[in-house]
Amino acid sequence: MNNRVERIIKRLEELAAISDDKECLSRFFGTKAHNDAKDLLIAWMKEAGLEVFCDSIGNVRGICKSNAQNAKHFVIGSHYDTVFNAGKFDGPLGIIIGIEIAHRLIAENTVLPFHLNIVSFSDEEGSRFNTAYLGSSVLAGNFDENWLSRKDDNNVTLTEAIETYFGKVDTIFEGKIPEEEWLGYYEVHIEQGPVLCEENLPICLVSSIASQIRAELTWKGISAHAGTSPMNLRYDALCAASEFILEVEKIGKAHPDKLVATVGKLNVLSNTSNVVPELVCHSLDIRSADANFLVEVLEGLQSKAREISEKRNIGLNWKIMQTNPVVVCDNHLKKLLRKSIKKVGINNPIEIPSGAGHDAVMISKVAPISMLFVRCKDGVSHNPEEHASSEDIEVSLKVSDQFLDELIKYNK
Amino acid sequence: MNNRVERIIKRLEELAAISDDKECLSRFFGTKAHNDAKDLLIAWMKEAGLEVFCDSIGNVRGICKSNAQNAKHFVIGSHYDTVFNAGKFDGPLGIIIGIEIAHRLIAENTVLPFHLNIVSFSDEEGSRFNTAYLGSSVLAGNFDENWLSRKDDNNVTLTEAIETYFGKVDTIFEGKIPEEEWLGYYEVHIEQGPVLCEENLPICLVSSIASQIRAELTWKGISAHAGTSPMNLRYDALCAASEFILEVEKIGKAHPDKLVATVGKLNVLSNTSNVVPELVCHSLDIRSADANFLVEVLEGLQSKAREISEKRNIGLNWKIMQTNPVVVCDNHLKKLLRKSIKKVGINNPIEIPSGAGHDAVMISKVAPISMLFVRCKDGVSHNPEEHASSEDIEVSLKVSDQFLDELIKYNK
Repeated sequence: MNNRVERIIKRLEELAAISDDKECLSRFFGTKAHNDAKDLLIAWMKEAGLEVFCDSIGNVRGICKSNAQNAKHFVIGSHYDTVFNAGKFDGPLGIIIGIEIAHRLIAENTVLPFHLNIVSFSDEEGSRFNTAYLGSSVLAGNFDENWLSRKDDNNVTLTEAIETYFGKVDTIFEGKIPEEEWLGYYEVHIEQGPVLCEENLPICLVSSIASQIRAELTWKGISAHAGTSPMNLRYDALCAASEFILEVEKIGKAHPDKLVATVGKLNVLSNTSNVVPELVCHSLDIRSADANFLVEVLEGLQSKAREISEKRNIGLNWKIMQTNPVVVCDNHLKKLLRKSIKKVGINNPIEIPSGAGHDAVMISKVAPISMLFVRCKDGVSHNPEEHASSEDIEVSLKVSDQFLDELIKYNK
Repeated sequence: MNNRVERIIKRLEELAAISDDKECLSRFFGTKAHNDAKDLLIAWMKEAGLEVFCDSIGNVRGICKSNAQNAKHFVIGSHYDTVFNAGKFDGPLGIIIGIEIAHRLIAENTVLPFHLNIVSFSDEEGSRFNTAYLGSSVLAGNFDENWLSRKDDNNVTLTEAIETYFGKVDTIFEGKIPEEEWLGYYEVHIEQGPVLCEENLPICLVSSIASQIRAELTWKGISAHAGTSPMNLRYDALCAASEFILEVEKIGKAHPDKLVATVGKLNVLSNTSNVVPELVCHSLDIRSADANFLVEVLEGLQSKAREISEKRNIGLNWKIMQTNPVVVCDNHLKKLLRKSIKKVGINNPIEIPSGAGHDAVMISKVAPISMLFVRCKDGVSHNPEEHASSEDIEVSLKVSDQFLDELIKYNK
């Protein structure tokens, strides 16, 4: 293992040790661990020779300026927040490889035709506020101020969370790179799926990112005593939600190659064993590479939910939290990336669509994007078992170094 | 409305204003609000002329001692903890009427043939530790030390909760009344069901209290990424739990006159919208007046859960938290109570079984018990709409005064 790969692995471990939970890795947006991780990323970026700027959403942006006239910004990034009980690679790998790339270019006194930015996005998972891409939305100038009043499970607003560690919300737009100044975006990420394992390949190109709809459903029944309320006079919100959750699973299983459908979060308001549940609130996450099909699925589930609500006489409220269309990776950047992969010795690089969303989705609204996937063991992610080998990380670093060289050559 | 009823209503309002939640009444065991309520109860008992003793579980016991040789203890009690989003009457009504009864007897310098105890039990609902009757179990000498290591949803143990406000756990048995010193127990409680409304009666006798089983189920699947994990390779613990919850509802609905079955509490460990749930833990509460039938139902549900677990390849853990047999009210006390009801002018008092559990369940292990139900509006309970009219409260106070007079006369 060469020194740079060793440093990447060491840094992945160091970041993974910063958690809000003692027993597992959990680093939600705007927590103590999240802020500690930010400080570590700042130190690494400075060590690489980058000029560091932190914006009010908690993004850490390391810049190596170009002297060229009218130079644009090229951004390499990924995120440093995690889900609960997370793995070490999802997010941090892309940031740490980015820092390594910049480190080499700066050490070699490379003349840059563009401003090189390495960005650690503060929130991609959306674990705390059920809104993904908070970090990249600021960089892309797409942050929606309506999000500021969203609340986490402890009734803390996004504004409060931002202002606890990161800065005033009224300066949030200072973190933006104006649309006309973007040259492009590159992200290295673990695949989080089984294809590279099956194909026995260390890395591949990403063709597109699946369309995703996130919603929140609230079922409202009537609270009653579990010992005295007769079964036929109950309006049990948890039974209604359970029926819907099985419908979500059913439609997902009916289209195994086209759709994933998940209820990952559910809260019962009273949450007491001897009280019939009155209020149940849960998430819905559906994704497909076919955006039209996804809208059909959404409509199907909405009609199923209505049926359940009417049959059980239980109130229902739908809130669409986020709708992301299919995002396609840029052809020109893909061409340079494909060339770089070949130069590293992989002759027939494959291209696969991503089921997972990435910060690239938000950046695609203002700039051409490109992504490199790295094989992860058994396709496991969002799980402490998540793993990418040092050999595969080495390949991804070589490809990325080469890609930047190609990009610099092309833009000179 | 006479002055005593006015005072009862005023006190119900005062207690209801003490809540841990700003927006609704919620007073779980061992919280700040719970402790504040305790202080208020102490003050009222002292005002009534009772000698007050607080034990380490947080029970408040007001005593009026008898001078008779070998006098035994007669206890009037109910609980001052609540469920989440509770009503004002469930628990406090029985305590406040008890204080009112003692107040009159003391003011009239009544010669007591037994020690009169008015007890405010600290935990009947079991909302925080999923163990009902913590308070009455101490008074009855049935407290199980294994409960001390139970944890609430924030990983606080029962020991820690007890020692925050109430006392050292190693003195907990000092709160006990030894079995041979018990004369009997009386509790006034709202019905929490619809019978008195349907029969248009203000009060009635309780014949028995239903058998109850409380269990906790944990489903263990595999955590995975909601965007990349194919539907046919998922082990989703929430889908498994949902399937079981619908089975619980189904068996309840199949036996509407014999059974109630409820899942009131459910937690998803990761609880993140983009993570397939790995660990789901939920309660199960089943009750019936027929204890043998209840065991059959439990076995049926256990076998259903096993089927779901095997079919889905999802781990399952059952923990039986509490099993309470059917409790029958004492014939002799019932006779005195029936006589008292008739003296108040209700000529054909009815007797009904209680679907809800009460502190009387725990006390029945060491003493004869008796209960009076008070009509509550539409049978609604465990809900802010819970209501008992001042007229019905007045009737229950008159009956209770009369009952104590009969009891004193009988024991002289």
